[in-house]
Amino acid sequence: MAPAAVDEAVQRVVLFSEDDPLLLACGRTLAPVEVAYTTTGTLDADRANAVFVCHALTGDAVATGPGGWWATMVGPGRPIDTDTSFVICPNLLGGCQGTTGPSSTDPSTGQAYGLDFPPLAIADLVTVHRRLLAHLGIDRVRTAIGGSMGGMQILQWLIDAPGEIERAVLVCASSRLSAQNIALSHVARRAILDDPDFHEGQYAAHGARPERGLATARRLAHVTYLSEEGMAQKFNRAEPDGWAAVGEAGRWLAPAYDVESYLEHQAAIFLARFDALSYLYLTRIMDAFDPFAAGPVTLDRSARALVVSFTSDWRFGTEHAVAVAAGLRAGGLGAVDERVIASPWGHDSFLLDVPAYLDVVRRFVEA
Amino acid sequence: MAPAAVDEAVQRVVLFSEDDPLLLACGRTLAPVEVAYTTTGTLDADRANAVFVCHALTGDAVATGPGGWWATMVGPGRPIDTDTSFVICPNLLGGCQGTTGPSSTDPSTGQAYGLDFPPLAIADLVTVHRRLLAHLGIDRVRTAIGGSMGGMQILQWLIDAPGEIERAVLVCASSRLSAQNIALSHVARRAILDDPDFHEGQYAAHGARPERGLATARRLAHVTYLSEEGMAQKFNRAEPDGWAAVGEAGRWLAPAYDVESYLEHQAAIFLARFDALSYLYLTRIMDAFDPFAAGPVTLDRSARALVVSFTSDWRFGTEHAVAVAAGLRAGGLGAVDERVIASPWGHDSFLLDVPAYLDVVRRFVEA
Repeated sequence: MAPAAVDEAVQRVVLFSEDDPLLLACGRTLAPVEVAYTTTGTLDADRANAVFVCHALTGDAVATGPGGWWATMVGPGRPIDTDTSFVICPNLLGGCQGTTGPSSTDPSTGQAYGLDFPPLAIADLVTVHRRLLAHLGIDRVRTAIGGSMGGMQILQWLIDAPGEIERAVLVCASSRLSAQNIALSHVARRAILDDPDFHEGQYAAHGARPERGLATARRLAHVTYLSEEGMAQKFNRAEPDGWAAVGEAGRWLAPAYDVESYLEHQAAIFLARFDALSYLYLTRIMDAFDPFAAGPVTLDRSARALVVSFTSDWRFGTEHAVAVAAGLRAGGLGAVDERVIASPWGHDSFLLDVPAYLDVVRRFVEA
Repeated sequence: MAPAAVDEAVQRVVLFSEDDPLLLACGRTLAPVEVAYTTTGTLDADRANAVFVCHALTGDAVATGPGGWWATMVGPGRPIDTDTSFVICPNLLGGCQGTTGPSSTDPSTGQAYGLDFPPLAIADLVTVHRRLLAHLGIDRVRTAIGGSMGGMQILQWLIDAPGEIERAVLVCASSRLSAQNIALSHVARRAILDDPDFHEGQYAAHGARPERGLATARRLAHVTYLSEEGMAQKFNRAEPDGWAAVGEAGRWLAPAYDVESYLEHQAAIFLARFDALSYLYLTRIMDAFDPFAAGPVTLDRSARALVVSFTSDWRFGTEHAVAVAAGLRAGGLGAVDERVIASPWGHDSFLLDVPAYLDVVRRFVEA
């Protein structure tokens, strides 16, 4: 089927059904699998201008336009130029923004899957992406781009389906989390799992949501998305006027510094849009991602990759990018360009208007 | 009074009473204030061999001997040599290991203070240390030493009472937390405050303990006490055998990697020995510590300080030590020696057997 010429509204399609279930890396099957996605721009007659955008942990299908999570990168005149490209962006498998995930309804019970939802792997997310591409009648994308967990999906795709991606842009990606990365995600997951409102994952049936645990996870995540340097620049570190003489502990312990108010704000808006089970599943998928561990991979000798990292990113910093690039080269990818961009904004940089970064991507995708 | 020659058992003394309450920096008073402390070694006839040890956030009065939290540093033949020194180590004000803190009984209610306990400052902790010293009949210490929050107490003491400390050893200390430091403590505090078992601080009266929140705080703290590099060395990062094919999400999400088991172990032993209210108060004291902000300080021109940091410490790293040393020099302290020690073990290094570090301290205190 040919998609509508310009369609920024979220569409939904069932890509796997009971007759044709999704076979997962863990050995289980899943059906139905519905996918929410957007397309932006016009597909050329020769279907050669498709761009696939993979989102990170908490993203969704709306990358561009007002409120889009990657409007710095994707849009008219942006590095991923929707005036000339046909941009596809799905919500990922296991998510909570329209695509099937652990809080979707289990057809066998009529309730949310909860922890009966199967464990997932990045490879499963890629299988669903590829099925969406086939559904759209596209064999090959001109560019596939993703940041953080989105970059991991691009990496897996390069391995799983040589020939489907001409140019890959992997930003702040990792091919193997560090023990520190896993530790941080563990702290977040335990906060969710220990929340009395979690109810072993069946919180919807209890009319509850583990908001305290999810808020803890989000506060912690935001500390790791910024850098020490970026926080020092962004927040007034000064003690509030008169606060030294606060004689009442409740007020003394309440948010007082700017960075505390920032974390509270981020937690509050996150609770309104995200789901705790998806948080558990998607972080665990990243822990287990290790695509070069199983031995040599054979990549497309005609494909090119751009691997970008940021100087102040301490979640998936340059050492991760170096490992990604080394693995791509060892696998025989046609060309691998590594770029380290100076930015004080840590892991968040990949979403921000960092001109040197956007220029590097633009030159790579237009070359 | 002259303390017993060698006494490693914890002693208790009431240092402030209703007739003579402790006047706090916030303007309130507190009484009674009981202090738990140990002394180790023999005080010389001229009372010139006293060493004062200040503990960090979660320490106690037992620094040395079997199970002592600083047995690498303090003991017979150690850099702080109990064969030649008289070592005093109290549990700090606001703590939960025998000294008055927010879970102590409020004499006006017969219940735990909870959040009725007054806000504290590092200066208040130092006031209590100095009263303990006076109680022991000592005017001046040969050496005062502390790591992390312990070092902050030494710094405040140098400012508050020039002439009382001959040699100060400040390890992994800070004179002003960064926004990132405050953010990390905020995440931990919110987890405790949000725990349904916190009961507005009156959990003891409810027969409860906010163990989930306190465990979250401790897991997070341990991530920040180690470094990325140290974690990579310490933990087997490998995926457990057969785990990729786990088809059951409960098992998949349970601790699987070594670092996850480590954090669970640390949280469990911490719950057995620490109190959530003390955690709230003591972390908040550190947030507000900013002794050089009020203007010039005048320090003892005959005193010397050693300021130590570790290369991989990202909680209170070398940039904090540089600021501490600069403030001491600006205040006119007699001599300030800055030493950066190579260690992969992050903030934890100050408690560990790092030979170059222990040698530096030994040379400084013996010179």
